Amino acid sequence: MTKIKNIHTQLFKVPLKEVLSDAKHGDHFHFELITATVTLEDGTEGTGYTYTGGKGGHAIKAMIDFDYAPALLGKDAENIEDLNDMMWWHAHYVGRGGIDAFAMAAVDIALWDIRCKNAGEPLWKVAGGTNNTCKAYCGGIDLMFPLPKLLDSIQGYLDRGFNAVKIKIGRDNLDEDIERIRAVREFIGPDVTFMVDANYSMSVEKAIEAANRFKQYDIYWFEEPIIPDDYKGYAAIAEATGVPLAMGENLHTIHEFEYAMADSKLSFVQPDASNCAGITGWLKAAKLAAENNIPVCSHGMQELHVSLVSSQPNAGWIEVHSFPIDEYTHRPLVVENHRAVAPDTPGIGVEFNWDKLAPYKEK
Amino acid sequence: MTKIKNIHTQLFKVPLKEVLSDAKHGDHFHFELITATVTLEDGTEGTGYTYTGGKGGHAIKAMIDFDYAPALLGKDAENIEDLNDMMWWHAHYVGRGGIDAFAMAAVDIALWDIRCKNAGEPLWKVAGGTNNTCKAYCGGIDLMFPLPKLLDSIQGYLDRGFNAVKIKIGRDNLDEDIERIRAVREFIGPDVTFMVDANYSMSVEKAIEAANRFKQYDIYWFEEPIIPDDYKGYAAIAEATGVPLAMGENLHTIHEFEYAMADSKLSFVQPDASNCAGITGWLKAAKLAAENNIPVCSHGMQELHVSLVSSQPNAGWIEVHSFPIDEYTHRPLVVENHRAVAPDTPGIGVEFNWDKLAPYKEK
Ligand SMILES: [Mg+2]
Ligand SMILES: [Mg+2]
Repeated sequence: MTKIKNIHTQLFKVPLKEVLSDAKHGDHFHFELITATVTLEDGTEGTGYTYTGGKGGHAIKAMIDFDYAPALLGKDAENIEDLNDMMWWHAHYVGRGGIDAFAMAAVDIALWDIRCKNAGEPLWKVAGGTNNTCKAYCGGIDLMFPLPKLLDSIQGYLDRGFNAVKIKIGRDNLDEDIERIRAVREFIGPDVTFMVDANYSMSVEKAIEAANRFKQYDIYWFEEPIIPDDYKGYAAIAEATGVPLAMGENLHTIHEFEYAMADSKLSFVQPDASNCAGITGWLKAAKLAAENNIPVCSHGMQELHVSLVSSQPNAGWIEVHSFPIDEYTHRPLVVENHRAVAPDTPGIGVEFNWDKLAPYKEK
Repeated sequence: MTKIKNIHTQLFKVPLKEVLSDAKHGDHFHFELITATVTLEDGTEGTGYTYTGGKGGHAIKAMIDFDYAPALLGKDAENIEDLNDMMWWHAHYVGRGGIDAFAMAAVDIALWDIRCKNAGEPLWKVAGGTNNTCKAYCGGIDLMFPLPKLLDSIQGYLDRGFNAVKIKIGRDNLDEDIERIRAVREFIGPDVTFMVDANYSMSVEKAIEAANRFKQYDIYWFEEPIIPDDYKGYAAIAEATGVPLAMGENLHTIHEFEYAMADSKLSFVQPDASNCAGITGWLKAAKLAAENNIPVCSHGMQELHVSLVSSQPNAGWIEVHSFPIDEYTHRPLVVENHRAVAPDTPGIGVEFNWDKLAPYKEK
């Protein structure tokens, strides 16, 4: 039993190389990275993190500093699942799935870093051990890219060794979405896996129309056609069109995953450890997915999810997200034979390049 | 059209006179009050607020300061409903019901203060106008009070002019809950309305057993027997026992209220404007309740909810909560003929006594 001695948080506001847009979050100019470094009484240290699309970072840091850290100091670091449960109830009244789920994530991932270091094993082994590689696709935040730029960006994914790509849809005029989908499929040919993501910008009716119209372009999945809260609306779209649906990046609690599994007729589920209370929350969602025979995928922070998705018997795909967190680590994502490769070092395998991050630190 | 010029937030950590305990939040030593004062370009000013049981206050303040305020400055203050919607989508990725719903509330209530001041009308008129008084009950946070102290505290409620009381239940041993319920009913006699609140500490099975055992003591409603996430579990308890159920203080989004209305067979719903995105969110929940023939009640901050509940055609009861926010205003709750009376001054009718709050201000 080793007790938690200190939790040190940092907030970075990292500019993006270009403005990235999607149907519901608008324009992204930067992403926020919130790190939590946990130190135990014996000196062992682990770092976890979460990220946002540019909003909420200060609140997440404040929640760790003022609410979770005081409750965690002095506690045994080994029982991560109990600590995760404690954090859930500790802030339940102001929690249940918003900022708290991100704040819990950063701390939880730090504790997993320590757990893996103490075991002398990489995360993919400790989290499940099924495999150390998984399928991967590149997801653009490219809704407003003109067509030539969109195709350029897709060529970039293929050049980097990927054979699966995803684009944003959800323009006001559905014809424009269909035209972009047609052009991309023509560009990549029949052998590249192709997904689309509407960022919950459509009504059930519009989503059904869209899915019926783009079916002919062999779309592997239709991601977040409608708001995450409308679980049964997803089932209505799946039943009406037969197009495989994916969602999960906006589900923050195990109860939300339970409703999605029970009511949404999903073909893929995409939890994000950074916003569903960490690795502990992600693994709960993965287990629920396995019980429902659904492949578990991921959203964002590919440098961490490569280990989690690879580790699971029901592994799906990791998204290689357009927020390049991995470029600020000492091991940007490795891709071999179209597959992402999990790090083999003890710990979560994500070590930040603090010097590279330093210019973006917020006070 | 008058634009928003400034939003000034303050956080206060107000000590309670004694430690208050319930079944799931544990011991309360203080409550947090977060105020937001909105100033328009023409100098008009309004103050809104939210509160917590002691956790999350810094995060709420940070979210207003860093995320909502920058997005609101320069916007027309009159279209509160549009601004509320804008805030929802602005922080959707880190939002949908945690800290963001509290932060939105403080700003939204300030905008309503301005709306009512500009109209020269009190809130109860602007929000609906049905009545300026409503039923009220005192709710203790008294789970760990020894029996004599519990009865003393109930005598205090009756002395203050109330004829409806609520106690906490949810001790590990159900026999102790039943014994306390029996003793309170005996003490107050058959004519005082009596509710119990388990703060979602029970399983469905235990709640059914509890409800069947305390039925004979004429319990007006059974509040939060189980976790708020288990909508259909509520219906199972209602169907198995016939005991009227109440919940809502932990529902933060309109979608959560929709699920509760559709699936939970509630007899009463208790939204709290401080945690469901403000007066705008509370009124949406109230309307939904009316459509489902359910009386709308409230949780906490009686000094504001008296105006909201009174204003509605389907008015239920306000809870007079044990966090005495109203003691830090210039008009603590007024009770006449067992009913709470809404303030008649233009604005929301809640003006803080800043001098009294000053000692508790956080940096
Ligand atoms: Mg997506
Ligand atoms: Mg209650």
